[in-house]
Amino acid sequence: MPCEFTVTRRVEFSETDMAGIVHYSNFFKYMETAEHGFYRSLGYSVVMGDMDPPIGWPRVHAECDFTKPLRFEDEVSIRLLVEKVGSSSLSFQFRFARLNPAPQEEIGRGRLTVVCVTRTSEGGLKAVPIPAGLREKLEVAPAGLLG
Amino acid sequence: MPCEFTVTRRVEFSETDMAGIVHYSNFFKYMETAEHGFYRSLGYSVVMGDMDPPIGWPRVHAECDFTKPLRFEDEVSIRLLVEKVGSSSLSFQFRFARLNPAPQEEIGRGRLTVVCVTRTSEGGLKAVPIPAGLREKLEVAPAGLLG
Amino acid sequence: MPCEFTVTRRVEFSETDMAGIVHYSNFFKYMETAEHGFYRSLGYSVVMGDMDPPIGWPRVHAECDFTKPLRFEDEVSIRLLVEKVGSSSLSFQFRFARLNPAPQEEIGRGRLTVVCVTRTSEGGLKAVPIPAGLREKLEVAPAGLLG
Amino acid sequence: MPCEFTVTRRVEFSETDMAGIVHYSNFFKYMETAEHGFYRSLGYSVVMGDMDPPIGWPRVHAECDFTKPLRFEDEVSIRLLVEKVGSSSLSFQFRFARLNPAPQEEIGRGRLTVVCVTRTSEGGLKAVPIPAGLREKLEVAPAGLLG
Repeated sequence: MPCEFTVTRRVEFSETDMAGIVHYSNFFKYMETAEHGFYRSLGYSVVMGDMDPPIGWPRVHAECDFTKPLRFEDEVSIRLLVEKVGSSSLSFQFRFARLNPAPQEEIGRGRLTVVCVTRTSEGGLKAVPIPAGLREKLEVAPAGLLG
Repeated sequence: MPCEFTVTRRVEFSETDMAGIVHYSNFFKYMETAEHGFYRSLGYSVVMGDMDPPIGWPRVHAECDFTKPLRFEDEVSIRLLVEKVGSSSLSFQFRFARLNPAPQEEIGRGRLTVVCVTRTSEGGLKAVPIPAGLREKLEVAPAGLLG
Repeated sequence: MPCEFTVTRRVEFSETDMAGIVHYSNFFKYMETAEHGFYRSLGYSVVMGDMDPPIGWPRVHAECDFTKPLRFEDEVSIRLLVEKVGSSSLSFQFRFARLNPAPQEEIGRGRLTVVCVTRTSEGGLKAVPIPAGLREKLEVAPAGLLG
Repeated sequence: MPCEFTVTRRVEFSETDMAGIVHYSNFFKYMETAEHGFYRSLGYSVVMGDMDPPIGWPRVHAECDFTKPLRFEDEVSIRLLVEKVGSSSLSFQFRFARLNPAPQEEIGRGRLTVVCVTRTSEGGLKAVPIPAGLREKLEVAPAGLLG
């Protein structure tokens, strides 16, 4: 039962800003890349429209601390850690590390909370339990790994 | 019957790249801003899901020539010109001008072709005639304005 | 001495995602739009390369709570509140409200901390005091407004 | 002497729009990903600030034809073909193909022209010859491959 997942990417030119570094909004896209890859690694997709009822995963909280800049063509790893598995919500922590150029170092930390919802007959959204098949594959990361 | 429409905006920091100028992909977002504002000015929205049948407007061609850079906090006008009204397609030209700081000057030109489609029962898309109510509000710009 | 600033915008098509709502990374761009507009309202730009020494404002923390979705063509206001003025850092809170379509309602809250830095001769960054001219124009918002 | 280069990527959630497909502005980012990867494969970076004189590569023309939609989690290949090597400009063609889910099919074609420039003492930009070391590594693709 996995409690973590890591993706790596190379910084694109279009992700930089005029300060010469990755624009901070992209760290939130990077988190999602890791989150969605994590679901795929478990045999799921964040888009679960074919479930009964169809469910979605809106984000309810996101945060990030930025300690070092990332630059064009840097290689960065985004490590997801499962922080909490609620009845209908999931919380993840993220560790961003620059892999290349050397030396490797942590450059930021993030956190994301998402909620499993379905659409009501009135067109609103309501929280529903996480699908059992997905839930039983999730494990909270050891306290020593979490911040 | 309008044949043109202009919007203005101020360049955001997140739209710049490490070269210190607006990343070229944003010019295509700017074109859409003008296009969608144009529809709104005619009493329509590009999202026409409540029509019968529901229609959409996928882009089939887009191009842009970039002659001068745009920078953070510059004010830019995006002028849309109706180039062609087909039975199920629309083509627009765009003129980008920096308004501020002075002097005002044209900094690029674009073109966009979109097609009016609906979903087939097999899940594909097929071109359908532009809704008559919208079509009768559209006029092609005078040849002297078009490039 | 202003302690708050509000900008409004209309949601662009390119800001939506396949869930039909504004992608959450854009809320962080919206915060910056308000922050940079606030500086401009005080006669400053976030790009202060002509100061001696040249200074920049990297983000060190950002967070957002999302309570209601935003959709295409919604009008949204982003209200910045000055939360803290440190010797070299600034913290802001943000209130996101959908203005249109009615009813008006708060749809999210954010927070951003930025640090005033200059470049060292070794190419690194070090925190420096906020320029006095800017600092004396900043006032912390009343506790009743802050969350 | 290479005349083509291919990169593959998986479509990110943040690249989709409310129509459920990749927003068309992202195709221009994808082109750049292939272009910059091509330079890297030749031992260069598009950021050539350490050359004498320092050079940059502003885009002067970009276009794309969109024939099929791309969706979340699709795998897409972006194949760059060298179309023209001028004294100070480069033109590339691009072929976009969806690899997965099957069947594989071409979903779009693009073109990009960039110019090698340096900064003048007055702060403007002027075209300069492509660095010889890079130029001699470039070969135009066979006419049969180009559109």
